[in-house]
Amino acid sequence: MHGNIKVFSGSAHPEFSRRICEHLGLPLGHSKLVRFPNQNMLVQIEENVREADVFFIQPSSPPVSDGILEMLITIDALKHASAARITAVIPYFPYSRSDKKDRPRVSITARLMADLIETAGADRVLTLDLHAPQIQGFFRIPVDQLIAAPLLCQRLAQTPLSDHVVVASDIGEAKDIERYASRLDLPVAIIDKRRYADHSKPVARQLVGDVTGKTALIIDDEIASGGTLLEAAAFCLARGARAVRAAAVHGVFSGPALERIAASPIQSVLTTDSLPLAPATGGSADKIEQVSVTALFARAIEAIHDGTSVFELYQ
Amino acid sequence: MHGNIKVFSGSAHPEFSRRICEHLGLPLGHSKLVRFPNQNMLVQIEENVREADVFFIQPSSPPVSDGILEMLITIDALKHASAARITAVIPYFPYSRSDKKDRPRVSITARLMADLIETAGADRVLTLDLHAPQIQGFFRIPVDQLIAAPLLCQRLAQTPLSDHVVVASDIGEAKDIERYASRLDLPVAIIDKRRYADHSKPVARQLVGDVTGKTALIIDDEIASGGTLLEAAAFCLARGARAVRAAAVHGVFSGPALERIAASPIQSVLTTDSLPLAPATGGSADKIEQVSVTALFARAIEAIHDGTSVFELYQ
Amino acid sequence: MHGNIKVFSGSAHPEFSRRICEHLGLPLGHSKLVRFPNQNMLVQIEENVREADVFFIQPSSPPVSDGILEMLITIDALKHASAARITAVIPYFPYSRSDKKDRPRVSITARLMADLIETAGADRVLTLDLHAPQIQGFFRIPVDQLIAAPLLCQRLAQTPLSDHVVVASDIGEAKDIERYASRLDLPVAIIDKRRYADHSKPVARQLVGDVTGKTALIIDDEIASGGTLLEAAAFCLARGARAVRAAAVHGVFSGPALERIAASPIQSVLTTDSLPLAPATGGSADKIEQVSVTALFARAIEAIHDGTSVFELYQ
Amino acid sequence: MHGNIKVFSGSAHPEFSRRICEHLGLPLGHSKLVRFPNQNMLVQIEENVREADVFFIQPSSPPVSDGILEMLITIDALKHASAARITAVIPYFPYSRSDKKDRPRVSITARLMADLIETAGADRVLTLDLHAPQIQGFFRIPVDQLIAAPLLCQRLAQTPLSDHVVVASDIGEAKDIERYASRLDLPVAIIDKRRYADHSKPVARQLVGDVTGKTALIIDDEIASGGTLLEAAAFCLARGARAVRAAAVHGVFSGPALERIAASPIQSVLTTDSLPLAPATGGSADKIEQVSVTALFARAIEAIHDGTSVFELYQ
Amino acid sequence: MHGNIKVFSGSAHPEFSRRICEHLGLPLGHSKLVRFPNQNMLVQIEENVREADVFFIQPSSPPVSDGILEMLITIDALKHASAARITAVIPYFPYSRSDKKDRPRVSITARLMADLIETAGADRVLTLDLHAPQIQGFFRIPVDQLIAAPLLCQRLAQTPLSDHVVVASDIGEAKDIERYASRLDLPVAIIDKRRYADHSKPVARQLVGDVTGKTALIIDDEIASGGTLLEAAAFCLARGARAVRAAAVHGVFSGPALERIAASPIQSVLTTDSLPLAPATGGSADKIEQVSVTALFARAIEAIHDGTSVFELYQ
Amino acid sequence: MHGNIKVFSGSAHPEFSRRICEHLGLPLGHSKLVRFPNQNMLVQIEENVREADVFFIQPSSPPVSDGILEMLITIDALKHASAARITAVIPYFPYSRSDKKDRPRVSITARLMADLIETAGADRVLTLDLHAPQIQGFFRIPVDQLIAAPLLCQRLAQTPLSDHVVVASDIGEAKDIERYASRLDLPVAIIDKRRYADHSKPVARQLVGDVTGKTALIIDDEIASGGTLLEAAAFCLARGARAVRAAAVHGVFSGPALERIAASPIQSVLTTDSLPLAPATGGSADKIEQVSVTALFARAIEAIHDGTSVFELYQ
Repeated sequence: MHGNIKVFSGSAHPEFSRRICEHLGLPLGHSKLVRFPNQNMLVQIEENVREADVFFIQPSSPPVSDGILEMLITIDALKHASAARITAVIPYFPYSRSDKKDRPRVSITARLMADLIETAGADRVLTLDLHAPQIQGFFRIPVDQLIAAPLLCQRLAQTPLSDHVVVASDIGEAKDIERYASRLDLPVAIIDKRRYADHSKPVARQLVGDVTGKTALIIDDEIASGGTLLEAAAFCLARGARAVRAAAVHGVFSGPALERIAASPIQSVLTTDSLPLAPATGGSADKIEQVSVTALFARAIEAIHDGTSVFELYQ
Repeated sequence: MHGNIKVFSGSAHPEFSRRICEHLGLPLGHSKLVRFPNQNMLVQIEENVREADVFFIQPSSPPVSDGILEMLITIDALKHASAARITAVIPYFPYSRSDKKDRPRVSITARLMADLIETAGADRVLTLDLHAPQIQGFFRIPVDQLIAAPLLCQRLAQTPLSDHVVVASDIGEAKDIERYASRLDLPVAIIDKRRYADHSKPVARQLVGDVTGKTALIIDDEIASGGTLLEAAAFCLARGARAVRAAAVHGVFSGPALERIAASPIQSVLTTDSLPLAPATGGSADKIEQVSVTALFARAIEAIHDGTSVFELYQ
Repeated sequence: MHGNIKVFSGSAHPEFSRRICEHLGLPLGHSKLVRFPNQNMLVQIEENVREADVFFIQPSSPPVSDGILEMLITIDALKHASAARITAVIPYFPYSRSDKKDRPRVSITARLMADLIETAGADRVLTLDLHAPQIQGFFRIPVDQLIAAPLLCQRLAQTPLSDHVVVASDIGEAKDIERYASRLDLPVAIIDKRRYADHSKPVARQLVGDVTGKTALIIDDEIASGGTLLEAAAFCLARGARAVRAAAVHGVFSGPALERIAASPIQSVLTTDSLPLAPATGGSADKIEQVSVTALFARAIEAIHDGTSVFELYQ
Repeated sequence: MHGNIKVFSGSAHPEFSRRICEHLGLPLGHSKLVRFPNQNMLVQIEENVREADVFFIQPSSPPVSDGILEMLITIDALKHASAARITAVIPYFPYSRSDKKDRPRVSITARLMADLIETAGADRVLTLDLHAPQIQGFFRIPVDQLIAAPLLCQRLAQTPLSDHVVVASDIGEAKDIERYASRLDLPVAIIDKRRYADHSKPVARQLVGDVTGKTALIIDDEIASGGTLLEAAAFCLARGARAVRAAAVHGVFSGPALERIAASPIQSVLTTDSLPLAPATGGSADKIEQVSVTALFARAIEAIHDGTSVFELYQ
Repeated sequence: MHGNIKVFSGSAHPEFSRRICEHLGLPLGHSKLVRFPNQNMLVQIEENVREADVFFIQPSSPPVSDGILEMLITIDALKHASAARITAVIPYFPYSRSDKKDRPRVSITARLMADLIETAGADRVLTLDLHAPQIQGFFRIPVDQLIAAPLLCQRLAQTPLSDHVVVASDIGEAKDIERYASRLDLPVAIIDKRRYADHSKPVARQLVGDVTGKTALIIDDEIASGGTLLEAAAFCLARGARAVRAAAVHGVFSGPALERIAASPIQSVLTTDSLPLAPATGGSADKIEQVSVTALFARAIEAIHDGTSVFELYQ
Repeated sequence: MHGNIKVFSGSAHPEFSRRICEHLGLPLGHSKLVRFPNQNMLVQIEENVREADVFFIQPSSPPVSDGILEMLITIDALKHASAARITAVIPYFPYSRSDKKDRPRVSITARLMADLIETAGADRVLTLDLHAPQIQGFFRIPVDQLIAAPLLCQRLAQTPLSDHVVVASDIGEAKDIERYASRLDLPVAIIDKRRYADHSKPVARQLVGDVTGKTALIIDDEIASGGTLLEAAAFCLARGARAVRAAAVHGVFSGPALERIAASPIQSVLTTDSLPLAPATGGSADKIEQVSVTALFARAIEAIHDGTSVFELYQ
């Protein structure tokens, strides 16, 4: 329907793109990013893409603003180069936590991102675990959202989990843990945090549920600086948990996150490879394990191209 | 900036509109809804609205589809009648629970509603407690979302609450209870429901937190058929609660809801008057108390017209 | 060009959809409409439609507002389910008589309908005999309008028509009768109605032309409550017609229409099956004859899919 | 609301614009049209229009294509010159007879005109007697349509009309005559034309109604080449009319129209001054009388600016 | 991908279209342009174009406004006739010199043209040598711009050029001459003109560079009235050039251009056949030589259809 | 018309914003930029902007991508905070040199920037000296472009210029020098560079015009790394110039530019303060002189707000 598949990679996570291409048995498309002295970028697509079914892969990874603009510029270049269809493959969606107007006069920036991507010329989006499922509604173009929970649970279930309790570090983020607790058939506990003044930092007040003598398995959709995770871990241990593990779809690990996790009592952290595990961020990554979602993305790209169901891939 | 304020009411909740106009000291605008034998509707605006700052009030109330189309037709009529600005005042937003694609090949209908309202010609929306705050991001026009929690908590706090526990009937809906628990300084408990097969009805499995000997104050954003509420009440009582009360922003009370609540052990239900408390639905409404949000809406309309802050009205 | 044909039916006229599918030799697509207690609807497309050439069939039939919203929601679901192309098949177009601003501050609702259908995501529309041909111009997407006159005239011509006069019940609706009078080679007569005050009910004043001793064949594009038709029949009989028959493309037959026609001196009424002939409306339908347009629609769907001329189908 | 009124005139009918400005007591805005050797045009607005409420007047008059492009270019120039609001005043709307797709693969060009005018940047349109009222629905911006019938009937009623019959020259155009017949309280007659092959020239077949010994008052919305009018006049005289007069809103009088009317048995033709009565078209204009609609347009411009009702101006 | 190629020609340059079709080995599509007495046009596409890959060819040629509207109407007709894709082939783009706002309150009409073409429904544009390369950015649809310099230089290089100097007639237009000077390996000279008052006619002040005893080869993108060219020629001769030749992509030759060139000392003028060489403009065309770009356009149409690179065609 | 003026500054050049506010006699609006650990940004507008006429000031300055996204996010926040009008004040426009498709499959990124700014919600743009005047046509919203040449020439004319020659460093960039040469009444010279292979670095081949014994005044619209300027200076000196000076509107001075200029034979460089003169870039700025355009911007903001002519400000 849409010509041949062509896969191009932005500069955010080329290893991820290469693995997808291996799964697809396709070469990665040739393109070039030039950065001028004045920091303007030039994206040069170096092969013909007319009437091709193009997938451009770019998770939101530091430098974040450069990555977003590189994506928009590339999509614009592909559109005017007459690609038949452009799917923006964004494993980790930028600004997905800016998804609501929780104080006056702020931008719902995840929505702005959707608008910018549509304006640049994307025809579809393929992504993984948006911070809130409503973000899919920010787009007027079709969005396929893959879900990592089956893969993560499959990996978690390879070791005995009988003493585990699934823990959410905030009531506001608790909605996701049912997905894990149901699959693993585990009880849940939730840290009840309160914000006592507007926009003040929330303070853990109570652990709703029981972790005494249990292994707390803290679940979140992403781990950024690790601050929330480490506080939750300490809170659980103080409430009697005998161990703490963590799982999250997106391992951002910004700033000193890896160092802090290495030095913490957390035993292990499971994530996907939606983001590069940057050695540059320093710290040891020994406790971090990544489950690859590249095969899942490759199958989704094939399904989008062939017109078969994407939903069935992650059920 | 936008001419004089003119307030028009759809047929969904004229009493609500009248109260707002009383607060504003303005007459309600004249309009007429004609239903033809073939069920097509004709909306006739019966006074000049050129260059006026028009507010059209229509919560989503049965008959729901008629109400939505009446709203779209009225907005279209106002636009082509040269209103300077049209604000759709939608105290209870239609399809707000259809806010995500939680199974394949369904519509995010809340987003579709936003698109239809923009297409019809609304310049702004004023609403109350959307099911999810992300729905605000479904609009490209400015949306003011009022929050009823301060008014509801103020009313709740008029009686002693020392033995109360704020209860969420589902982890997925738990995010809102922090808003109430913080204001009332109460502990929380959450019913852990699980879905064991796709789209099967979720089953309550565990009460996370403790309600033994306490009054369970079940909080939700809306009460429709009352099924969820009654199950939650029974679950709390079975786990030792000594009494159950409920509070919700939107009292939909569809079908036999009022009868079921009257016959249930629930002591009281507090809602706002965002929707008419239809005697037609049968059953006694003795246990239902409504806090009026009409003064809040009137002040918001003034603020929108005058260009003063809306956020400060409900802080 | 657009994948395989898939035909889905809304709940307005499933029999019509089934007949079309029989003509096409295709199974009807699986979908499900759920009505929640609060009257919100959920449309679930139950089979993969990615890259398919989807036709969704829904004439405007009571309950009209529900039918319109069901159509918009289904189109939105299909679009986000990645259908390659969506053609809204609307044999009887909603609000087609609200096609002009004949008084101040009303909506041209047929235009609004066109806008809403485009917003929801339809790529094309296939319809039958719009009330005014200009309505086709309300769309920015391609519209194929089929014409029933050839089929209706073919059926009428099966009995001798030598004493027939084609009659229009209003000058304002007279433009269509030439289409019938020319094909059947019959003379015409027109009832001259006048509106003596704004928007007052028009009063028949004069029969322009002659029906004395003739059979008046009253032609209209639709019959709703039947009031206009019955007045026209009485007027013709009072001016000397010896019999009255009627033909109209769309048999809406709302309210007591069927009963009134059964009790009237009208001998027969010919329509198409663009709308279900609801037994629920009571009254006998013995005088009503329906010519099926389903084969015509099936051929049009094939032509749209194959890229052959639609115009030639009804010439 | 929209700054001061500024009125600019295109080159189509400057006298019309001047008369409107006289009624308004305003000077005509300064602008200049330069035609380059290669026929490209340059429109130079020669005074500041920032934040002004601009009305640009241009009926569709020969050279028609130049006039349309001049209008689009001027609107674009005004928009980018930061006019607060731009109302395109188009007394005779271009391509208003191309309002339907009456054969395959043609453009509904009146709709295209609406789209082009919106694209260029007009915020509103003010026009007079569109060929079909549905054309108003081709716009997404507000359109005020003035009606000339009251002024024309007022003028007609200044002489005795007791022996007059209002005649439509085609069933397809008959819908407008009710407006005149009701106001003047006259009977009607309609020429029944038939098209015996596709797109062939229609042939008058029958006069429905009676004009014997009467004065036929032929009504149409416009007179272009005069061919239709002259044929209708001959047909009426052949059916026994003792005299023929005519009235039409728009006097296009293209080609040899004025000469043919001068040489015809038609006694008089009444039109408005929506178009210039070009002496250049040759022929005597002695039989033509123009009723000015410039005062009506001036009052409509004031009403649009002041936000008072336009509808009341022509009732 | 887009059905079969169908090529239609507007009335601007049918010979150009015919030559392209010969190169493609395809018949020219059947269409008809009717001009009504009132100067409105009707475009009738006389063959089925559903799902076809349609190319419509229309350079901007006198009568310019008629040609632009004919193009817009045809595109609209093709779109609503369900063409799969419409490429507007515009060898000489209208209003390409109105590409900037070089004085206040004027239209950037080249941009308006882009907007109008998109509004009418074109999916792509194929053109030749835009006056400024930035004009390509005025479009949101893909634009392929062919470049005539290789063909023109190839022809020029067939005669010895050793004494030639490439001359630009204005600094503002000098940017293009590098393209020619580099390919032909010739020195350059530039006429330095100055505008001493706003928008006054620029006056040649100085010849930067040296043409003494040389043949001045004046390069421009188009020759309209020839005034600029003749002045430049005189200026070069006055500065010692021994001969003058000229080359330009687009030979507009408006008004008395051909006569003036015939009477001038210019030895020869080389252009492409992007525009018809109208004998109607009078004057001898003996000095004019046209290099055909029709084969280049035919190859570009094939490349667009087949999805192969267009850029490589003119490198 | 648009409420009170409120001026907000992005983080690119706060000093520039402060100076504008001083000229306007207005306080700078309060806003806050928060950078999260994961590099996402939050813009918080800290005062009510409803119905205000907001100007947001952000030239494109390093870090460029962050600055662009900060601008888009701020505009989005202002729009949803109900600002009456938002003018993006962008003294140095990002990606203005990416204004054409000079090789295949690249983005016209200046056009993309225009699209993104419109999508985010800006109503107008105010800028200074775009790289090409056509860029103004990339916008559908009104753009006011200020010109610095009058101010720069005024400053240059304060010292004797009798031996100066205005020099363009490339034919492709020569169009701007006429503006300076005319105002200063100086002769011109142009460096003729050639590109001998695709996209290779151009090589200076010839100096068209004469600088022997003169002071070369090299003019450009911006100085980035300084490479082009330094090569032009060396070329002029090698062709006999006795001194070199430079003037450019935008002083980007990226990388080692200031150091290289300090070490070069160039005597002085005149620019505006459209960009901060970053000491962080190292090197001495002794040779750099900045003419402030802040008063010009302040007057333009007032004119936009008051609806007076902007063009007159810089004539």
